Amino acid sequence: MLLSVLQANAAVLDVDANLATVNAAAQRAAAAGASLLLTPELFPVGYAPLRLHAELDPAVLPSIRSRLAEIARSHTVGLVYSLPALAADGSWRISATLLDTDGTVLLEYDKVHLFGGEERKAFSAAQAPPGVVDFNGIKTSLLICYDVEFPETVRAAATRGAELLLVPTALSAGFDAVPQVLIPARALESQLNVAYANHSGHEDGCDFLGGSVVAGPDGSLLAAAGNGAALLFAEISTESVKAAREQVPYLSERRPELYREWESS
Amino acid sequence: MLLSVLQANAAVLDVDANLATVNAAAQRAAAAGASLLLTPELFPVGYAPLRLHAELDPAVLPSIRSRLAEIARSHTVGLVYSLPALAADGSWRISATLLDTDGTVLLEYDKVHLFGGEERKAFSAAQAPPGVVDFNGIKTSLLICYDVEFPETVRAAATRGAELLLVPTALSAGFDAVPQVLIPARALESQLNVAYANHSGHEDGCDFLGGSVVAGPDGSLLAAAGNGAALLFAEISTESVKAAREQVPYLSERRPELYREWESS
Repeated sequence: MLLSVLQANAAVLDVDANLATVNAAAQRAAAAGASLLLTPELFPVGYAPLRLHAELDPAVLPSIRSRLAEIARSHTVGLVYSLPALAADGSWRISATLLDTDGTVLLEYDKVHLFGGEERKAFSAAQAPPGVVDFNGIKTSLLICYDVEFPETVRAAATRGAELLLVPTALSAGFDAVPQVLIPARALESQLNVAYANHSGHEDGCDFLGGSVVAGPDGSLLAAAGNGAALLFAEISTESVKAAREQVPYLSERRPELYREWESS
Repeated sequence: MLLSVLQANAAVLDVDANLATVNAAAQRAAAAGASLLLTPELFPVGYAPLRLHAELDPAVLPSIRSRLAEIARSHTVGLVYSLPALAADGSWRISATLLDTDGTVLLEYDKVHLFGGEERKAFSAAQAPPGVVDFNGIKTSLLICYDVEFPETVRAAATRGAELLLVPTALSAGFDAVPQVLIPARALESQLNVAYANHSGHEDGCDFLGGSVVAGPDGSLLAAAGNGAALLFAEISTESVKAAREQVPYLSERRPELYREWESS
């Protein structure tokens, strides 16, 4: 399966401009034969936690979701987007959604590890582990940004069967080691594909790194972006996952019963 | 503190030759101002699990340990060595030992994750988590080879306070991603220094990678060896650990109570 990854600059609270960027990327991705487009964290509204919390009316979220579903449907491409979401208890979450090529929701995930003071003021951290669904014959899961820097989160996806992990992010300039060191290690140690889609450029006081990557289950980089806008493509297969897991069976040679004891001792 | 890491070829069951290699390295390390010398997995006896189990008389182990203590004492250098060890139940373990500069034992660790069929035939896997001791003002811990490929083991050392993790290894050629991808990620995600000492050359049917490394708590390589014999040096400090943990507080922002729930759900 051909996967595409959007790295781009969002305009804070300019939903029309951001959806136009997503739509153009979906069109290019579909034309190139990609089955799925991954976009960055909070991209349709821009990454600006405090302004989003203060200025974004949650009542507009369903219409943004409908427009994103229409983008997926019109180009017959799967789509991962990230938006604020209102939890049942009224708190705000940072969410990610995987849409099927007909625009229906296949999987949702809320961010468990919030990063920094502004995210913590604007949002609440979720508690549920990442789920796994079948997309095009590949077991697919979601995490968001800081989550993936913790190996425990990727383990949770991998032990639930994930072969492809899709990660919208908003990573500042200066944190090059996250895509260059941690993402390939996450892919290798849990033997799955990891795609990591970042913002580029400047949004509302924050300079983003760019540097989006796709890593394979042997820890190699399948695709990597520079600092500017980019649309990455990478061929993802379950065969490379199976081959890696046969060569070194990390997942079956884990000793989770010991790790639990060690955590509490 | 200046740390030295020995990468060398061992001769299987030629203890005199291997201890001469360790002694020469300890002399060079001490002369260069190093406080501690890390040596590879099972180096004093050579890496050959089945032959060790069949041909090594456990009665000789105490004298090998005494000679290693004398090497540490005579050069006033701390020493990490790895040897087979008889457990209380009569089973064989792969152990690692940290000696103080006067040759006294500061810390012992038995390998928890055995690699491959030969190790599993010759040895039993241990269950205890890595301990942590003070060496020269730096909280220091031990893991062995395959252990460090699992992020859970390094977490166990880091949550017990480790700032420096010393890892004797015996890694075959072809597994370059372990020292190049996983070791820097282990250092970065748990924000400690990791030193990884490998064999080089050919021992009893196995070609070793070499490629020993020392990684700092920001994920950078502080030192790296090629394929041949080498003595690496790296300056290790607690300051770089503190700085990394202040910049991004991974260890305090983990959510271990969720990870435990996720493991059992």
